[in-house]
Amino acid sequence: MHPEGSVLVEFGNTRVLCTASVTEGVPRWRKGSGLGWLTAEYAMLPRATTTRSDRESVKGKIGGRTHEISRLIGRSLRACIDLKALGENSIVLDCDVLQADGGTRTAAITGAYVALHDAVQWLAGQRKLAGKPADVLHRSVSAVSVGIIGGEPRLDLCYEEDVVADVDMNVVCTGAGDFVEVQGTGEQSVFARAELDALVDLAATGCAELAALQQKAIAG
Amino acid sequence: MHPEGSVLVEFGNTRVLCTASVTEGVPRWRKGSGLGWLTAEYAMLPRATTTRSDRESVKGKIGGRTHEISRLIGRSLRACIDLKALGENSIVLDCDVLQADGGTRTAAITGAYVALHDAVQWLAGQRKLAGKPADVLHRSVSAVSVGIIGGEPRLDLCYEEDVVADVDMNVVCTGAGDFVEVQGTGEQSVFARAELDALVDLAATGCAELAALQQKAIAG
Amino acid sequence: MHPEGSVLVEFGNTRVLCTASVTEGVPRWRKGSGLGWLTAEYAMLPRATTTRSDRESVKGKIGGRTHEISRLIGRSLRACIDLKALGENSIVLDCDVLQADGGTRTAAITGAYVALHDAVQWLAGQRKLAGKPADVLHRSVSAVSVGIIGGEPRLDLCYEEDVVADVDMNVVCTGAGDFVEVQGTGEQSVFARAELDALVDLAATGCAELAALQQKAIAG
Amino acid sequence: MHPEGSVLVEFGNTRVLCTASVTEGVPRWRKGSGLGWLTAEYAMLPRATTTRSDRESVKGKIGGRTHEISRLIGRSLRACIDLKALGENSIVLDCDVLQADGGTRTAAITGAYVALHDAVQWLAGQRKLAGKPADVLHRSVSAVSVGIIGGEPRLDLCYEEDVVADVDMNVVCTGAGDFVEVQGTGEQSVFARAELDALVDLAATGCAELAALQQKAIAG
Amino acid sequence: MHPEGSVLVEFGNTRVLCTASVTEGVPRWRKGSGLGWLTAEYAMLPRATTTRSDRESVKGKIGGRTHEISRLIGRSLRACIDLKALGENSIVLDCDVLQADGGTRTAAITGAYVALHDAVQWLAGQRKLAGKPADVLHRSVSAVSVGIIGGEPRLDLCYEEDVVADVDMNVVCTGAGDFVEVQGTGEQSVFARAELDALVDLAATGCAELAALQQKAIAG
Amino acid sequence: MHPEGSVLVEFGNTRVLCTASVTEGVPRWRKGSGLGWLTAEYAMLPRATTTRSDRESVKGKIGGRTHEISRLIGRSLRACIDLKALGENSIVLDCDVLQADGGTRTAAITGAYVALHDAVQWLAGQRKLAGKPADVLHRSVSAVSVGIIGGEPRLDLCYEEDVVADVDMNVVCTGAGDFVEVQGTGEQSVFARAELDALVDLAATGCAELAALQQKAIAG
Repeated sequence: MHPEGSVLVEFGNTRVLCTASVTEGVPRWRKGSGLGWLTAEYAMLPRATTTRSDRESVKGKIGGRTHEISRLIGRSLRACIDLKALGENSIVLDCDVLQADGGTRTAAITGAYVALHDAVQWLAGQRKLAGKPADVLHRSVSAVSVGIIGGEPRLDLCYEEDVVADVDMNVVCTGAGDFVEVQGTGEQSVFARAELDALVDLAATGCAELAALQQKAIAG
Repeated sequence: MHPEGSVLVEFGNTRVLCTASVTEGVPRWRKGSGLGWLTAEYAMLPRATTTRSDRESVKGKIGGRTHEISRLIGRSLRACIDLKALGENSIVLDCDVLQADGGTRTAAITGAYVALHDAVQWLAGQRKLAGKPADVLHRSVSAVSVGIIGGEPRLDLCYEEDVVADVDMNVVCTGAGDFVEVQGTGEQSVFARAELDALVDLAATGCAELAALQQKAIAG
Repeated sequence: MHPEGSVLVEFGNTRVLCTASVTEGVPRWRKGSGLGWLTAEYAMLPRATTTRSDRESVKGKIGGRTHEISRLIGRSLRACIDLKALGENSIVLDCDVLQADGGTRTAAITGAYVALHDAVQWLAGQRKLAGKPADVLHRSVSAVSVGIIGGEPRLDLCYEEDVVADVDMNVVCTGAGDFVEVQGTGEQSVFARAELDALVDLAATGCAELAALQQKAIAG
Repeated sequence: MHPEGSVLVEFGNTRVLCTASVTEGVPRWRKGSGLGWLTAEYAMLPRATTTRSDRESVKGKIGGRTHEISRLIGRSLRACIDLKALGENSIVLDCDVLQADGGTRTAAITGAYVALHDAVQWLAGQRKLAGKPADVLHRSVSAVSVGIIGGEPRLDLCYEEDVVADVDMNVVCTGAGDFVEVQGTGEQSVFARAELDALVDLAATGCAELAALQQKAIAG
Repeated sequence: MHPEGSVLVEFGNTRVLCTASVTEGVPRWRKGSGLGWLTAEYAMLPRATTTRSDRESVKGKIGGRTHEISRLIGRSLRACIDLKALGENSIVLDCDVLQADGGTRTAAITGAYVALHDAVQWLAGQRKLAGKPADVLHRSVSAVSVGIIGGEPRLDLCYEEDVVADVDMNVVCTGAGDFVEVQGTGEQSVFARAELDALVDLAATGCAELAALQQKAIAG
Repeated sequence: MHPEGSVLVEFGNTRVLCTASVTEGVPRWRKGSGLGWLTAEYAMLPRATTTRSDRESVKGKIGGRTHEISRLIGRSLRACIDLKALGENSIVLDCDVLQADGGTRTAAITGAYVALHDAVQWLAGQRKLAGKPADVLHRSVSAVSVGIIGGEPRLDLCYEEDVVADVDMNVVCTGAGDFVEVQGTGEQSVFARAELDALVDLAATGCAELAALQQKAIAG
């Protein structure tokens, strides 16, 4: 009903509600700079996972994992926006995981791009942008998670695969096929250069497919 | 996908996701008592309202309003369960408001009852109850908000009505028509005995209608 | 010694120290509105109860019950003050329970009214009110707790009665006999319409008696 | 009504409520040691001072000054108790300042001793001490604040004197005239050896007078 | 003086104190598993940077960046230890930045490996390991930061370079040349596949040089 | 590298890093007063002690002991500075204990004076002082800890002596031999007037020796 842009992303059984909220003006320390501001917040409903987890609001502090994912989403989306063309407007992207089955952070980035696109259109309709909409959002971003399971590179791990993966990598690409973020971790096992290359290739292909779906969603 | 009982309630534009999570066992201080345990947690997504509100997890503490509503939901649902027949099981009812347009706390109670019913059935299927399902959940509860607007008693205030109401009352009734909670507040204005009576009558009728809908939802 | 208005209320063994503190000016977001501001804070000394409870300052957060009662006291007292006639002054009502034996929240409201009356007089003496004192404080409020014990409606439950009560109700009335708040809870048991009526009648009578005592206290 | 020992101390306009709470047993890490446990907590009601101060429970953390005074009171009272003779019992001394006009920490120590004495008597009556009462509480303690104002040593500074004092010293003595704590601070000004000696002499005399009053209070 | 392993790492002007602390036993939920436990904590002294930053202990919460780096260090070091061979011992690696000039997280990982090596030797000397020292620490890890500045890949960015880098990448490698973590971020700019490859090559060479220095430090 | 003044103090095995950070301007409530501002913060690295202690940033609050010592250092250093001659500049003194073996607070004060001296010289060089450097820092301060062990007064207790001391006293003196702070505590035991005098004499001698060393450090 309310938000300027709101998208429910489904990746397998993973469901993330991505909404963009716009406020005129920017935080005080940024006033007069002519630049806009964009942040993201990621959270999980307590029963998004198989076993209920405690609410971070009840525990009174946000866990390291939540912080880290919020920062990743924010960086990724800032990579596709021109804050000068946005003008002194603030956008908050909220990504709330309703149901989690692997790949929540990459689903969140992919959905948040669509919500951000709608918010920029809404701002354009209100004549509040400093530049043209196409200059404000000059790139698209999409993201996938890939991993190595039993020696095989795999795209879009669900939760059960994620747990047994030897290597786990999150990749954020632009619609033009460039990289915004590459985060590969081998806690269960280390990985060789050839494996790194195979994962990056697989991720780039996955991101390209998502970019096509995003264009469809925006056009529709 | 995951929860033992999960219900998405819609009251006008208000949407609340109510889920019940079951754990075997009870908090340590209650062990060996033979009694079960039931709590509720209420929360709003930041963009459930017209203007984005800050996350309580980010602020690091839960506001008074959130606490108060969580406590109300917990009391109301404990009124319909026999903790002895439940046996040493714990149930948490999470009520997350996805979209808010008035009456979120009463929608939450009404939906939580259905989620609780499913959870008790699930426990029965697992043969984990100490008593019979009908003894465990020996009553139903439903809730409505009523108010006086321009001198007229009104059922189910939406947000815009709520703001201008002279008197605002939340009523929780059992399926048999008895009262569990009556909370009437006249911050804008005080109210006379006759108005109190009219509001209570109106609320009782509304709760009875919801009780019928709950039975249908459970049967279906 | 210090406060603009300070009252020690005794209801049976319950003792609550109610003080009103006045500051010129209002919170920043309210400046220039011409309206005053009134809030209340309720707290219990750790040894007010039979068993020592931990300090909320030591635990680092305020419990849900404390929040809820502070909000109730604030709403009740705002019902009797005209914030426009008060002008841009802020009043904080502190209600600190020195000894608790049931009915602390209703004792707090009843005493806070007297402290508020003194504070308004003090402001009048300082010529700081925007309107006349009688317009500023255009109503009185008093409060009682009532309950049903063994099937009988009872006024002013002490702690031991409170624990065994089937139904527990807090009622705030104006001096003219109208209602400001009605909060009835049946956690031990539900209650029928006739019982609700009996409790409300009993509470209204109790509030009227307290209103008379408040007038005496103010006059004296 | 409730506490095992409870004393309202008045030093000039300063009023401190000191209560002792006894629990059987000690914190887990101390179990089986045969030793008791004694702690103290100091707090000020928000309107104890001329200008209302914010509640530490509302701010969510305890200030440095409160911590420091709580620790001082705890140390001073532990100096007069034999934790082995106390046996595995825990005593909490709560010192809540109702009205503050200088010297609150020394009033708190002096009053807490009397509350502690009563609590030890109560434990003796319950036959819960490991040793004899006289061995448990083998010393008394009392405390005064002294200062130099305009070059003159002064006993028992009230708030207005405290603010202008060049040197401020808190001294805790035993009934036998030995020292438990000497805390002298010259923020406004430094002090010479002769001034230190004069302050210590004056404080020792003041403590002796209080020790006599404590004996009377206990005897009465 | 005290720690089981303690190393002061200097990378250019960056100085990080890495210490390993050993405790017998593991957290309660891990008892009886036969597995050890290893965590890391990263922090910066307030004046490590050019402009003093506020202490996280004073602010009352740890920032997202600190959390993220602590987690990265922990994952990297767990990649080189066999928790089964470690036995039920806990190791905490503290990395405190005394002076910061870019690359603090990679310096911390590289130094923490040496501190961890000393701690494992110390445990071996105390005969507290479940397996042989060489099995406990079956790999070494070292880390570098690389980036693209003005189109050129660069190793070991200092703070001023870091700020202007288009792309920033942290890479953790084993002594055998495999990858543990690859984290590349293009907040200022995106990066093509060829640039990714060049950065990874450069990082692998840098890590190999550090691995040789670590061997020297351990041998010496 | 960075700070305006930075000193590593070594007292026996105790090592404290004292740095002074200067900012132009003062906190908002002090603006326009013409007065400067000086505060101090004390902290211990987790592994400064024999047994690792938890980080206060991780625990989310600062302990009472840390607060108390920070306040003591701040008061002591404010005693030697003329805030009017300093002008509207703010100085923060950070005292971080890298290794602790008794006497950390007195080492911190003694080192902080030297760091403060350097910061004042730096401000003079920048022509930012309101008065002459010699008027700004019109006194020096140094501090020692003394105690009674086995009946004997002792200077500079190391950790093992500190633990067994009957009486423990921290004394802060000016270079001219006057007293700024005298804090004596007899938790293990009380002390007689003669013992107090002996400790004060010993401390004054120790402070004088340190004052000479400070002069050398500043001159060098």
